[in-house]
Amino acid sequence: MKIINTKQLIELINLIGKESFLNQLKIYIKTELQRWQDFDLSPRHSIYFDCGVIELMPCADQQFYTCKYVNGHPNNPKQHKLCVAALGLLSDVNTGYPLMLSDMTLLTAFRTAATSALAARYLARPDSERLAIIGCGAQSEFLVTAICQSFPIKQIKFYDTDIATMGKFACNMKCCSTPLIPCRNIPTLMTDNDIIITATAAKQHQTLFSQTKVYPGLCILAVGGDCPGKTELAKDVLTSNQIVVEYQAQTQIEGEIQVLYGDGEPEQKPFTELWQLTTGQKNGRTSDDETFIFDSVGVAVEDFATLTLLYQLAGKYKIGTDVAMIPTPENPKNLYGMFD
Amino acid sequence: MKIINTKQLIELINLIGKESFLNQLKIYIKTELQRWQDFDLSPRHSIYFDCGVIELMPCADQQFYTCKYVNGHPNNPKQHKLCVAALGLLSDVNTGYPLMLSDMTLLTAFRTAATSALAARYLARPDSERLAIIGCGAQSEFLVTAICQSFPIKQIKFYDTDIATMGKFACNMKCCSTPLIPCRNIPTLMTDNDIIITATAAKQHQTLFSQTKVYPGLCILAVGGDCPGKTELAKDVLTSNQIVVEYQAQTQIEGEIQVLYGDGEPEQKPFTELWQLTTGQKNGRTSDDETFIFDSVGVAVEDFATLTLLYQLAGKYKIGTDVAMIPTPENPKNLYGMFD
Repeated sequence: MKIINTKQLIELINLIGKESFLNQLKIYIKTELQRWQDFDLSPRHSIYFDCGVIELMPCADQQFYTCKYVNGHPNNPKQHKLCVAALGLLSDVNTGYPLMLSDMTLLTAFRTAATSALAARYLARPDSERLAIIGCGAQSEFLVTAICQSFPIKQIKFYDTDIATMGKFACNMKCCSTPLIPCRNIPTLMTDNDIIITATAAKQHQTLFSQTKVYPGLCILAVGGDCPGKTELAKDVLTSNQIVVEYQAQTQIEGEIQVLYGDGEPEQKPFTELWQLTTGQKNGRTSDDETFIFDSVGVAVEDFATLTLLYQLAGKYKIGTDVAMIPTPENPKNLYGMFD
Repeated sequence: MKIINTKQLIELINLIGKESFLNQLKIYIKTELQRWQDFDLSPRHSIYFDCGVIELMPCADQQFYTCKYVNGHPNNPKQHKLCVAALGLLSDVNTGYPLMLSDMTLLTAFRTAATSALAARYLARPDSERLAIIGCGAQSEFLVTAICQSFPIKQIKFYDTDIATMGKFACNMKCCSTPLIPCRNIPTLMTDNDIIITATAAKQHQTLFSQTKVYPGLCILAVGGDCPGKTELAKDVLTSNQIVVEYQAQTQIEGEIQVLYGDGEPEQKPFTELWQLTTGQKNGRTSDDETFIFDSVGVAVEDFATLTLLYQLAGKYKIGTDVAMIPTPENPKNLYGMFD
């Protein structure tokens, strides 16, 4: 199988260019979402610990099987480690043999950004010029870059509780020609936007703003509420605006909409799922005044799209190291004979 | 993280000696089963295809998380590939970071053998001298070796539908001083045994023998029925003898006992689970005349034990290759800055 380490992955993406990679990813993700019914889907498998969560996100069609291993450990930065790290595996369904293992930490940031931008194309006004982001952590620049690719953005407001993190964001975004407007708090940021991204490292149930701050036409891309007990939006924001999810069975456990669910009993009718917008089965925005929330948690089909794109690119650019991880005995029934 | 490829794994086991490795594994598996309640358990996650199955077997305590990826593709040998191949991942629960990835195909054969031998210690007569095995495939020699370590075996009968496979078995077992008795059919094999192992590549519901062939004192280690729709024992064999399973929630889907279940409704009271024998909560054999079936499907705790043993040994013997699969940016919040 091919093993793609972090360095090789970065080389590959630099070779292609990160903007171009992001664009290719948007196409792959859209194409896969359009054939949602072809996939074997299940909510991710999570094991919760006091210090964090470890998850598996399997997905398959009739050709490829993929599985992402991903953790979420909010205290990792104190040990100079990432909150979220991931590995991705891709296998051949016909034989069950693994074909590729890759670092998927960086790819997760790309795929989350690509998916949010895809959702925004259905939910934000096509002429959206004013973008704002709350939370300037590891995902922020990927998200902003992906939105700027899809809309004629003319200003980017940004805010983070940590001033150094705001500085990092501004530094990374300086090559983008769009004016950057640092905000000293959320109320300042909230005025006059077309698209707002929420992507904080929310702990427990936070409320970044209330419904009084939401105005006609706004599209909220809610990226940060992605774990049981971790949300960013107020209940009145969720009940007052149209919500699109990726995969309701998973989102109601992990996403913003978990606050709409009582003790197990759903209070809401089914939400529109993103794939239904990509196929045209349901409508996104139909007028300028509508307000939307995209409740992003990340689903396995997006990782499937990412890993199949990577597999294709790694082949084309000859990136990765071949490692023999499965025995190849002369007689497949003779494993014992492989030992002394 | 440390990556252990097939060649490195074989080197390590040859260094230790396969018999010694098997013995260490028995101790590890028993120790982990004795603290069954400490683990976060779930039945394995399976995706079924026309050509086979791909499964994930996650398990964790408060220190380590492990996950085995394993397939089952009965037609693989036609392509000169293995029916069953596996990879094992071990992570640090404290950070969620992966620590080790290893070929687990060979390890799966070892752990299945170690677990069956452990079960036999509770379920077979301690003075068992006569062992028989039906099915001489990839697992067979590991199983027989593990049983021979635990009992004063004086003869080994063996049978397979494929004569070449019987030859392979005999050749691999020739260093073992115990007399080997090839059998031309199952009825010949069935007479006068203390322990019978069933380990065929059963397709659908097979019946290797009926209850009329079972005599007092026998212990049946049923290894081959390990997938929905794939069993080896007749219903009357299952209803007439005491059954021990590993993890009922999983075994009733995959193991021999699936034939006791109608359309969803269990007909049987809860079965004894192997861990309950290791803690002494339940009894195994208490008299010479009892007959037992160990319905082996393989559970994630056994893989957990195997991977933690391997991790310890790989450290001690400095086996494996360190590969950087997780980004290490100077600022954990600055993933974007890792690209051009």
